[in-house]
Amino acid sequence: MALHSELKFRRDLIRKAMADNNIDAALITCNTNLLYTCGQIISGYIYIPINSPAILFIKRPNTIRGEQVEHIRKPEQIVELLESRGIPAPTRLMLEGDEIPFTEYQRLAALWADADVVNGTPYMRQVRTIKTDLELNLFRRAGQSHVKAYSRIPDCYKEEMTDLEFSIEIERIMRQEGNLGIFRIFGRSMEIFMGSILAGDNATEPSPYDFALGGAGLNASIPVGLSGKRLTPGTSVMVDMGGNFNGYMSDMSRVYSIGDLPQKAYDAHQVCLDISHELSETAKPGTVCSEMYDKALKMVSDAGFADCFMGTRQQAKFIGHGLGLEINELPVIAKNSNMELAPNMVLALEPKIVLPGVGPVGVENTWIVTEEGLECTTRSPEGIIKL
Amino acid sequence: MALHSELKFRRDLIRKAMADNNIDAALITCNTNLLYTCGQIISGYIYIPINSPAILFIKRPNTIRGEQVEHIRKPEQIVELLESRGIPAPTRLMLEGDEIPFTEYQRLAALWADADVVNGTPYMRQVRTIKTDLELNLFRRAGQSHVKAYSRIPDCYKEEMTDLEFSIEIERIMRQEGNLGIFRIFGRSMEIFMGSILAGDNATEPSPYDFALGGAGLNASIPVGLSGKRLTPGTSVMVDMGGNFNGYMSDMSRVYSIGDLPQKAYDAHQVCLDISHELSETAKPGTVCSEMYDKALKMVSDAGFADCFMGTRQQAKFIGHGLGLEINELPVIAKNSNMELAPNMVLALEPKIVLPGVGPVGVENTWIVTEEGLECTTRSPEGIIKL
Repeated sequence: MALHSELKFRRDLIRKAMADNNIDAALITCNTNLLYTCGQIISGYIYIPINSPAILFIKRPNTIRGEQVEHIRKPEQIVELLESRGIPAPTRLMLEGDEIPFTEYQRLAALWADADVVNGTPYMRQVRTIKTDLELNLFRRAGQSHVKAYSRIPDCYKEEMTDLEFSIEIERIMRQEGNLGIFRIFGRSMEIFMGSILAGDNATEPSPYDFALGGAGLNASIPVGLSGKRLTPGTSVMVDMGGNFNGYMSDMSRVYSIGDLPQKAYDAHQVCLDISHELSETAKPGTVCSEMYDKALKMVSDAGFADCFMGTRQQAKFIGHGLGLEINELPVIAKNSNMELAPNMVLALEPKIVLPGVGPVGVENTWIVTEEGLECTTRSPEGIIKL
Repeated sequence: MALHSELKFRRDLIRKAMADNNIDAALITCNTNLLYTCGQIISGYIYIPINSPAILFIKRPNTIRGEQVEHIRKPEQIVELLESRGIPAPTRLMLEGDEIPFTEYQRLAALWADADVVNGTPYMRQVRTIKTDLELNLFRRAGQSHVKAYSRIPDCYKEEMTDLEFSIEIERIMRQEGNLGIFRIFGRSMEIFMGSILAGDNATEPSPYDFALGGAGLNASIPVGLSGKRLTPGTSVMVDMGGNFNGYMSDMSRVYSIGDLPQKAYDAHQVCLDISHELSETAKPGTVCSEMYDKALKMVSDAGFADCFMGTRQQAKFIGHGLGLEINELPVIAKNSNMELAPNMVLALEPKIVLPGVGPVGVENTWIVTEEGLECTTRSPEGIIKL
């Protein structure tokens, strides 16, 4: 079956990275890497030997059966179960060192006392950077749903609304168009609900998180995004909702205005569109990420908006990022990012400017890197839409 | 100011636990523990020496200033900044070993080469188990909002709806009543959107997660909760949405029916109500958690529903859990849980039965342990409500 060979193909990509680094087995347990390697989330582990088929060690659910499946209560059982299958103990094992907690890593690393244990997270992230055809099609379909949901955003607006009330209606249409809700982020520290609605000066508020823009948030426990203030005439609203329609995170931002904005806002918005168009028309396999960032920074500086590019009081240091099962995959489009674009990468480009007294402007789309250049999965009008 | 002394009080509770374990400093960086100790989330660290005031080391945002605040780019700067303040290096340091990833823990543990480093997560979780008056009032207010939102659930229903369509409308009213959306869970492995809507036989589906009940989910990437099927006459629907109205997780489940249910469902529901009433009327400080579990299991066995208590094909091994900034705090109400209830604990009790062909029944409320017994923060009618 197609999914079976897809998953085998992905595990072989990982085996290739393992071979390049003299690793002879991987023990994987984090949800996104489980999804990637076995197409489902389990409470348990997938063990990938470099030279033999992968085996699932499952604590929960108790209903999955198969030749390559073992049910366990604790990870220590993996050792003897592998032995009984005649699979040799690993000599150099990779674990998800940037993802699993210290005590859990220690416990897993102790399973084979003689094994050298290395951090596999960077290898997994590198492999996941290049998407398969199946993954690319999931992005294309997610992009269509994302665009369809956004086309309904003007219907969500009523005069005198707060940013929160506006967001609640947008969240609803996102769900109705198939958004699964969960917003997956690499790393333990960043959190957000379904995405970000930033209106007026709230877009100038710094946040502790490393998203493109900040926002004060509703509560100290969620210091990002909307603040509960009323939408006021003469200000802009940026909608930047995560597009998790099938497990893969599509990303897209569009800007709306309450009435008309000062001319400066339309000028700044056009600068962002120009950057987006310039980058997406020139980028191709081989393009260095830092060159894209430098080009954007030059364009925005030439236009006189450098001091409010990607924020004001606190400015994000990137203008784009890889997408996948998580919103912040590789590559990062940033000053010192020397990664080169390669076919079948997926990335978001999001040049944005925040104008104090007005709000945020700019655009964000999701792009697939093809041999010919960038393909947009979130194609739809990019102008500021008057509500 | 009140918040200032509240936070000082909490840090002193942590210092007490540190003293009991010969720990002379804590370096804390996870969001929930930052919220608990400094009332806000930062990208950075709070350093709590046992004998001098805590210091914030902040990477982001760049806008927080104060005598006890230092801005840093990387954690290695903490060492010399403490030195320059005349604060001695720790001899026994605690880090959040069950929470922060292996590589990050290693980096922080290496800051002071001579220090003994221990896992502080169990101590932090123990301290957070006993809530302060301010926290209890946040639970009481959250409970009121939770009840108010649930009172609107019947308005969300339309004939021929799917569980997903029903959920989307419930999510919306939860948000309108102030739910912040984010559902915080201790541990890296469990994920859920805003909560769970389980209808009919979907409640019998095992999930990889250790929630009270399962559900197939909409997609392999979120294998829990609603499945997208139509709500059909003669089946029940359990609404179990997280109540994050202010950072603290209130928890509450109620059952609805599409038309009438077989008599067995009302009987099973009554058994759950009886268990809930018996436990909540007899539990008090000193009650051992396993005794509560055993009593529940005896009642449900006597009533003949043991084989479908807390699930069918896969049964949860607990009937309640502590609540706080995360949904799964201590104590756990389970077979071998020898923790004793103590004043100012907060917990959810959720005896539930799943009837194949009908669906889930039962109840869940949030309770504060007081000197006199349990106080309900989610008081509202508990019968099955016909939609």
